[in-house]
Amino acid sequence: MWKVNPESPMTPLFHEIRRNPLLWLLVFVPVVLVVEKLKPEAHTLLFVLSVLAILPLAVLLSHATESVAAKTGDSVGGLLNATLGNLTELVIAITALQAGQYMLVKASIAGAIVTNSLFMLGASFLLGGLRYHVQEFNRIGARLQAGLLFLATVALLIPSTIGARGLSGATQLNQSLSIPLSVLLLIAYILGLLFSLKTHRELFAGAAEQTEAAWPIGLALTTLAAITILVALVSEVFVASVQEAATSFGMTPAFVGFIVVALVGAAAEMAAAFSAARKNHLDLSVGIALGSAAQIALFVAPVLVLLSYFVGPAPMDLNFWPGAVAMVLFATLTAALVSNSGRSAWFIGVLVLIVYLMFATALYLLPPQKT
Amino acid sequence: MWKVNPESPMTPLFHEIRRNPLLWLLVFVPVVLVVEKLKPEAHTLLFVLSVLAILPLAVLLSHATESVAAKTGDSVGGLLNATLGNLTELVIAITALQAGQYMLVKASIAGAIVTNSLFMLGASFLLGGLRYHVQEFNRIGARLQAGLLFLATVALLIPSTIGARGLSGATQLNQSLSIPLSVLLLIAYILGLLFSLKTHRELFAGAAEQTEAAWPIGLALTTLAAITILVALVSEVFVASVQEAATSFGMTPAFVGFIVVALVGAAAEMAAAFSAARKNHLDLSVGIALGSAAQIALFVAPVLVLLSYFVGPAPMDLNFWPGAVAMVLFATLTAALVSNSGRSAWFIGVLVLIVYLMFATALYLLPPQKT
Amino acid sequence: MWKVNPESPMTPLFHEIRRNPLLWLLVFVPVVLVVEKLKPEAHTLLFVLSVLAILPLAVLLSHATESVAAKTGDSVGGLLNATLGNLTELVIAITALQAGQYMLVKASIAGAIVTNSLFMLGASFLLGGLRYHVQEFNRIGARLQAGLLFLATVALLIPSTIGARGLSGATQLNQSLSIPLSVLLLIAYILGLLFSLKTHRELFAGAAEQTEAAWPIGLALTTLAAITILVALVSEVFVASVQEAATSFGMTPAFVGFIVVALVGAAAEMAAAFSAARKNHLDLSVGIALGSAAQIALFVAPVLVLLSYFVGPAPMDLNFWPGAVAMVLFATLTAALVSNSGRSAWFIGVLVLIVYLMFATALYLLPPQKT
Repeated sequence: MWKVNPESPMTPLFHEIRRNPLLWLLVFVPVVLVVEKLKPEAHTLLFVLSVLAILPLAVLLSHATESVAAKTGDSVGGLLNATLGNLTELVIAITALQAGQYMLVKASIAGAIVTNSLFMLGASFLLGGLRYHVQEFNRIGARLQAGLLFLATVALLIPSTIGARGLSGATQLNQSLSIPLSVLLLIAYILGLLFSLKTHRELFAGAAEQTEAAWPIGLALTTLAAITILVALVSEVFVASVQEAATSFGMTPAFVGFIVVALVGAAAEMAAAFSAARKNHLDLSVGIALGSAAQIALFVAPVLVLLSYFVGPAPMDLNFWPGAVAMVLFATLTAALVSNSGRSAWFIGVLVLIVYLMFATALYLLPPQKT
Repeated sequence: MWKVNPESPMTPLFHEIRRNPLLWLLVFVPVVLVVEKLKPEAHTLLFVLSVLAILPLAVLLSHATESVAAKTGDSVGGLLNATLGNLTELVIAITALQAGQYMLVKASIAGAIVTNSLFMLGASFLLGGLRYHVQEFNRIGARLQAGLLFLATVALLIPSTIGARGLSGATQLNQSLSIPLSVLLLIAYILGLLFSLKTHRELFAGAAEQTEAAWPIGLALTTLAAITILVALVSEVFVASVQEAATSFGMTPAFVGFIVVALVGAAAEMAAAFSAARKNHLDLSVGIALGSAAQIALFVAPVLVLLSYFVGPAPMDLNFWPGAVAMVLFATLTAALVSNSGRSAWFIGVLVLIVYLMFATALYLLPPQKT
Repeated sequence: MWKVNPESPMTPLFHEIRRNPLLWLLVFVPVVLVVEKLKPEAHTLLFVLSVLAILPLAVLLSHATESVAAKTGDSVGGLLNATLGNLTELVIAITALQAGQYMLVKASIAGAIVTNSLFMLGASFLLGGLRYHVQEFNRIGARLQAGLLFLATVALLIPSTIGARGLSGATQLNQSLSIPLSVLLLIAYILGLLFSLKTHRELFAGAAEQTEAAWPIGLALTTLAAITILVALVSEVFVASVQEAATSFGMTPAFVGFIVVALVGAAAEMAAAFSAARKNHLDLSVGIALGSAAQIALFVAPVLVLLSYFVGPAPMDLNFWPGAVAMVLFATLTAALVSNSGRSAWFIGVLVLIVYLMFATALYLLPPQKT
């Protein structure tokens, strides 16, 4: 099944696999699916195996998306990258939605925003800063993404405020509010793409992503389809096992959704962002980190709310746990403050990472019944 | 009564009326006053008529104020503009205060701040941006107004925090707090005028308002007095009819106070701000939008609190509904973030308008009993 | 005991005392200690005497620290200044901790942050601005301190949010949270010193403190030790008398901790900051004001939490009264906003001072049972 045939159109895929040791983890994809059939009650084992299997799939998915994007020209490519760039997160979340695990969906959305805008950004600043004294990046791009994140935070704050005040009919109200808010977020996202890819693209020049060794379009599309299906299969095992595994590891569900799922889902983007920072391409790192966060907040989250009317057992609203909204708000403020000047040094990375560590500590220690 | 006599000192007024179709709505001023005598229970009709009558009165009031200001020299003129520029809002609010409608007064104050700093600013950015690729404006002026708005937000947060925590004696405490807070806001406002009109006026040069075709001082003063009385008369009809009309339109009182009253009261400034943005005078648009918001927060609001000890049935405090304070806070933050760079493009306007639309949606859907 | 011998190594100390009238208040040090023995129940008198005695001790402590710092070279000196610069506040707080007065400790920590970042900064801007039209300062240094303050605010927000939500086991949770949060704050503080004193010191050049007439190292070290003991003795009287004295003056305990203790503890730094502002060394003023605030938030506060496991009757956590956290948050935001541009004029000082006055008014009027 995984033998290399040098004449095959899949050759670049196998070269990639040989070159990148992370992809050797692909062996866990069949393993997790087999173990799930044989021992469906081994939650902890299945959780670990599914995490190990998702990591290389996310890397391949990311490479395939970029290859398709590279072949289709700048604007369409940018659009593809912008919509499929967080496909892993989207597939995991849809699986959780189908399973009715709204708490996990919401925690993973908020966690992905916080992880991308704090951990990925902070670690990029730190890794780049350890090698270069002072680094510069395109602050116009960073400001646009921070502005979009700010908008999404406002959208999350409105239902949470209503939910927290215990109004009569708050649930009903939140559901009728969440649809127009989601539509407004999607409109902002689409117009933001029009702005940065079309009408004012010259302002964002520095942040363009460089794809190394794009695959042929046929391979890329096939990989995209096949890997998406595999991610969906593995995600089902992941979602089914995560809660029980968390308990056995002594982690709260909030910590798992916020930190573990978010780190697993964003592994591929992180690898790219960190490598760019170490090559002094901080533009690219900031673009990936804040761009991913904005994409999850303004594209993945509203799409999930709208999909929940067709996919899940009941509609999902935008009413997040107040602590989650507060973390998203402070992550957005932190990202806006540190990226405002367009310059960075190692200590800026430390500051941002410590904010992330504080949130992670609080989530780890929070009693499980609360979430 | 409305015939034109070419020799009369009122000729410029009639020219203005013929030139500006919006002023033809003046015909609704006598209509609304007559209908109010004949059919005082036709709330919905009276509400629509009073809105139609206030719009042209606000435009005339604005023109008369600017004419008086233009004749009295820069410093006094700036002072007049700064104190009478929101005369329409002030007269409507005093009328509501006399009627004991504190909820409407507070909603219209908070709504005017939010409408000016989000809708007026955002629409100016968008309208200007649709015609010009990138626009620049004086960021020092914008920062001063944003700083004043921030101060007002802090003043509103203090009593609301106390009110929300349900302390024993919170009402009493809020009233004794609201007087010194109002006095501090007025002091900040007056010193801010001294700073921008006198000691550091050179920093704010770009933001000066240009009056086209100032009226003679006699006409301007007479118009000012006469129109103020008419606004007061029509406001009484407006305030008496607004709540019942809102119910029949299916709008919540919060939505009416926040959105409808604020848009009606600010119509004249909006016309000026939008026209300036389309002529690439974004300095002027930003100055009108943020200046009006700051004026309502630091002049109109504290004056109403102090006046309430003489005019209304009971003193009014600065304890606003927490949702209203949150909207003022986020409107201020949004305005500060987007005006900080001194540059604008169409998408900045879209971002700001979408924040406004989110607030409007939430207010429209909120259950009426809540406010 | 206090006679001058020109050959003595203590001559510079006596010169200093003769030159600086504030130091004549040293006479109150023996007075307060004697009165405390004779009339331990005269709380109001003891409170006034202890305030008068702490003021000159704080000035001497500050001078001794700077002299030691000046003799030990830039990096070690900077470190010494950074750790001993708020020795007065630290000694007062440890005394209150030993007495089990956690409320007073927390109020004085939050109050010191707010007083330094609003009152000291605002008054420096105003005093400088009354003499110079526009003043410039090193915004990179101001941004670093504002970033550190922001981090500390996040650390304070986490336990307060949990405390405010009334979770079961919130107290237990807050204590286990406060230790890692304190350690993270100390790590950020130490790395911040490494950054500003070592790896990127060239960015912070303007903010270096100038010591005039450094004392010989022997005198400086002796003074440091002796004065610290005296501050500890007087602090005991101060802490024991402050609550009862407050009641007799009609002040709430919150007001005393937040405003009075903070002003007394920071008197020496204030004298230095204001004098620098009047000499157009605004770099120095901003560095002292924001540096002191950051030092209290990231060094004094976490050290007190960790010390409380050894010193006080029970461990202290980072769970501050929500109003205090809100004030720290808005003080930090205000300081960040006004110091962001690196330029100042008198009105900026007015704005910042009015925010401080609003907080002081609210604390003065708040009912005493609340805190």
